[in-house]
Amino acid sequence: MSSQKRQKRYEVSYRLGQIAMGQAAAETVIKDGTLVNVFTGELQEHVDVAMAFGRIAYIGQADHTIGENTNVIQANGRYIAPGLLDGHMHVESTMLTVTEFAKAAMAKGTTSIFMDPHEIANVFGSEGVHWMHEEGQQLPLKVFTTFPSCVPATTDLEDAGAALGVADIEAGLQWPGVEGLGEVMNFPGVVYGDPTMCGEIEATLKAGKTVTGHFPSEDERMLQAYIASGVSSCHETVTREQALQKVRLGMHLMIREGSAWHDVKEVIKVVTEDNVCTDNMSLVTDDVYPMTLLNLGHLNHVVRRAIEEGVDPVKAIQMGTINVARYFGMEQEIGSIAPGKAADILLIDDLKQMVPSLVIADGEVVAESGKIVKEFPVYEYPAEARSSVRLQRALTADDFLLRSKGNAPQTQVNVVRVIENSARTAKMTATLPVIEGIIQPDLAQDVIQMACIERHKGTGQISLGFASGFQLKSGAVASTVAHDSHNLLVMGTSPEDMAFAANELAACGGGMIVVRDGEVLAKVAMPVAGLMADRPLETVAAEVVSMEEAWKELGCPMNAPFMTFSLIALPVIPDIRITNRGLADVTEFKLIETEIGPSTV
Amino acid sequence: MSSQKRQKRYEVSYRLGQIAMGQAAAETVIKDGTLVNVFTGELQEHVDVAMAFGRIAYIGQADHTIGENTNVIQANGRYIAPGLLDGHMHVESTMLTVTEFAKAAMAKGTTSIFMDPHEIANVFGSEGVHWMHEEGQQLPLKVFTTFPSCVPATTDLEDAGAALGVADIEAGLQWPGVEGLGEVMNFPGVVYGDPTMCGEIEATLKAGKTVTGHFPSEDERMLQAYIASGVSSCHETVTREQALQKVRLGMHLMIREGSAWHDVKEVIKVVTEDNVCTDNMSLVTDDVYPMTLLNLGHLNHVVRRAIEEGVDPVKAIQMGTINVARYFGMEQEIGSIAPGKAADILLIDDLKQMVPSLVIADGEVVAESGKIVKEFPVYEYPAEARSSVRLQRALTADDFLLRSKGNAPQTQVNVVRVIENSARTAKMTATLPVIEGIIQPDLAQDVIQMACIERHKGTGQISLGFASGFQLKSGAVASTVAHDSHNLLVMGTSPEDMAFAANELAACGGGMIVVRDGEVLAKVAMPVAGLMADRPLETVAAEVVSMEEAWKELGCPMNAPFMTFSLIALPVIPDIRITNRGLADVTEFKLIETEIGPSTV
Repeated sequence: MSSQKRQKRYEVSYRLGQIAMGQAAAETVIKDGTLVNVFTGELQEHVDVAMAFGRIAYIGQADHTIGENTNVIQANGRYIAPGLLDGHMHVESTMLTVTEFAKAAMAKGTTSIFMDPHEIANVFGSEGVHWMHEEGQQLPLKVFTTFPSCVPATTDLEDAGAALGVADIEAGLQWPGVEGLGEVMNFPGVVYGDPTMCGEIEATLKAGKTVTGHFPSEDERMLQAYIASGVSSCHETVTREQALQKVRLGMHLMIREGSAWHDVKEVIKVVTEDNVCTDNMSLVTDDVYPMTLLNLGHLNHVVRRAIEEGVDPVKAIQMGTINVARYFGMEQEIGSIAPGKAADILLIDDLKQMVPSLVIADGEVVAESGKIVKEFPVYEYPAEARSSVRLQRALTADDFLLRSKGNAPQTQVNVVRVIENSARTAKMTATLPVIEGIIQPDLAQDVIQMACIERHKGTGQISLGFASGFQLKSGAVASTVAHDSHNLLVMGTSPEDMAFAANELAACGGGMIVVRDGEVLAKVAMPVAGLMADRPLETVAAEVVSMEEAWKELGCPMNAPFMTFSLIALPVIPDIRITNRGLADVTEFKLIETEIGPSTV
Repeated sequence: MSSQKRQKRYEVSYRLGQIAMGQAAAETVIKDGTLVNVFTGELQEHVDVAMAFGRIAYIGQADHTIGENTNVIQANGRYIAPGLLDGHMHVESTMLTVTEFAKAAMAKGTTSIFMDPHEIANVFGSEGVHWMHEEGQQLPLKVFTTFPSCVPATTDLEDAGAALGVADIEAGLQWPGVEGLGEVMNFPGVVYGDPTMCGEIEATLKAGKTVTGHFPSEDERMLQAYIASGVSSCHETVTREQALQKVRLGMHLMIREGSAWHDVKEVIKVVTEDNVCTDNMSLVTDDVYPMTLLNLGHLNHVVRRAIEEGVDPVKAIQMGTINVARYFGMEQEIGSIAPGKAADILLIDDLKQMVPSLVIADGEVVAESGKIVKEFPVYEYPAEARSSVRLQRALTADDFLLRSKGNAPQTQVNVVRVIENSARTAKMTATLPVIEGIIQPDLAQDVIQMACIERHKGTGQISLGFASGFQLKSGAVASTVAHDSHNLLVMGTSPEDMAFAANELAACGGGMIVVRDGEVLAKVAMPVAGLMADRPLETVAAEVVSMEEAWKELGCPMNAPFMTFSLIALPVIPDIRITNRGLADVTEFKLIETEIGPSTV
């Protein structure tokens, strides 16, 4: 497959030159389009683009490059734009393998991504990162990796499947296609001189690569200390003021529009109202779920959103192409249409819609009218990757019974209260009945039981707690997508269903499941690391829709409750979480008991 | 000297962060200026900049970074701009060593240069490049090198002191601070697959560095073939149309304003009239002579010229700072004012004048009110570098007598006719008297004698020819600045004065000289490689003025005749040249005889 063996520019440039000079024929010529010139900001009419050897040979009136074997594509005035680049994303969020994601994203016009395989890193460490990276290297999609920087997210509150240190980052930076360090989330660690954080940044700078950031605070002093370290971008900006603050300090502003985060509307005001230079800004998706990918698109949707908010379409496309390439120092290869660069090209009927009718990568047609027309290679994950849910033994209802330390008829407990459409949680307390020494959930109060089970090393460790906000009335749910350590999360109205959900999910290699009365109502199997399905987007999206329906059947009225649920174990966002070690008070960064003790009321 | 041991960002970033956080004091704080924000394009009023360890620690209201030992500089509303970067220049053109040039340029606000030591490379090869590069590394000026690519300019028409091949470039690219390949002048060689040219480009791309270009043609197809190779910039653009052509193809457009080339007026129209994006453009000087440097300035003059032509001052400054840094992939180090970056900062009273009243480099004040206030280290060139004019023996008048091959009383000769203010020459013929077998010059026709003497290896080789256009009436001139091979050029009205000029110039190690009747009228000694003086700019500029006066005394009415003279040996620009091997017909790329034969008239 030619896309797997891309030729270096210097290997083909002389022959590209011969085509430009009219001494040899191009392989493919797009005739008569309107070029979206991301260098000048112009739309240039009646332009042809000639290509060969996966690269661009000539731009302009290119009849002299057409030979008898040249494939001529009539643009008929359609826009000719560079393929889109997503400068920050987690493939795992799509619930798809890199291959299946690539098919979905390329059909929408994405030709390069910079992925941060942070989720698989928490399960399998460097080896997991390597699998996904290797999978990416054989695809028509150009898959670059920013090496995950903060694995695990915390060391004191939970147990992930793996930990990455400075030596892992140093080694990973040597792999061809690893272009930087993934979002450095531990910004206090950077500012206060944490040796691992500082060591990872130093290793990346020494390798001449890019340190990508994550700074959700507004603390000006801390921000400047963070920037001084060499972290050079941020995609966590949610207000116009934060955006201006960061751009003024030279941070590459990644404006995000994912499934859960809709930042374009507000943040793009730094362009449409503050009118500052856009050359150090880009558009990214960060986390996109299957239904978003299917219904709205990938980076083309983010570009469209920027245009809807009033950004000049060419400028918006710059923010999804050349600006990203420049940020990663790859502008001589990708992000624009110029002689010698990769022939990654879109034909688009309407810039405001941003739906490509033709997608070319490395000079070959990959998608037409939203459908992939090229065969993608199959990547076989090793057996180990597909058996990541390791339980010490099958779970039973008994495992989910929380015994009271006292013998009062009721007791007070800490409860994790989720907030719809937010990653934050609130800490609340509830008074629950104790029957035969077992603390009982109370559906009337919307306090139901949950558990977090260590699933990487089969230690048998299980922690029990209570959740509120989901309003389940029956059944149980489970997920091995449980940021960031991705242990096995279970929640339900009965210990029997909780055990059933956990065992069923483990049996299929992980994913997400909804059960009731010993019956599986819906399941999205994600056998690769318990995080990704190796089925096509359409299939997975339909399964996710069924799963959402099943959550509703159990009584949950929330929007995308499975995503909120998957964040309930993330001990870096306040206020309170459940991990495999127990309840974590994230405001005080310590483990606390679920049971407070007999109610004093 | 602290500027010689710049600390890496990761060595000091934690301590910079402590300053930002208010936990440690800055070394220096500029209070209350108007920041020229090259990221956003804004002017931000009432901004402080705190710095330490040669880098920037905090920007904004920085009172919390001021300790009892902090040096506080009151900006009093002056503009705070990043130090200027010259993306393409030849230090040798200034006739100064890197050290003396650095003093002159830093006083004008230049804090980084990307030099192409192409002239010394023709004299001493890699070793010469290494001397200048090494000299640059110890200076407060940040001196980066683009390794000369086309040495010698031709192989068939002349003999330079050295030749560089692919292996030299590969070795040079490993030196810290060598950031790319110098202007690839042999563009036909690139397009037609010359192995040396292609090999040098490949080596540079493999090293992840920048290939700078030189494309003075308008041939669209050849331009695209040239760009495909990986050459990514051009500073040889002289029309708005060429500028638009190159920018549209993604070439980094270097707009030049040197002493001989005044391209800004025309080329800047691509900004002021075509209104295209400026982020892939920069301003450069290329070649600046001492008087220009003294009277007009260095890169600040180019920025001023752009502003005079209607460019927004902040945009013009971007073209002399951040854009240059980005082009060379160094934007995390230089070209802007942001936490962690080098503290290279100018205070400027009036952006339209662009004369810095204070110049800070690596956090230290280098110049105030146009005067250097910091001690610069002394660089000792090795003895070899200072004995580059190697003649086989002292020259005599006899050496300059051109014997006719026939015995007619007159004969026809080819003459190099120079054109004022142009690098081109015209080929003409003249009929000259022959007396006692010697072809005689004819001052009435303005045909005088010239010679080019091999001076690198002492081969004794000498070629004789005739020049027209200089209108010398007496005396002789000589120069070891003789592009690109820098042999010893002599021209005069008598063979005695020619021999005297050549011997006197050789005795002082080279440079430029004007003599009459056995007396030195003026001399600019350039003992370093016969190309550079190790005296201050003011001294050298005064000597150059005296030399211009002396040319006038000999009868020459031309503007800067010594520069025109120094180009008369350059066999890559049409129509006709003199080299150490003889007359070179550059239209046919071959050597021709000076004497055509007896006149048929």
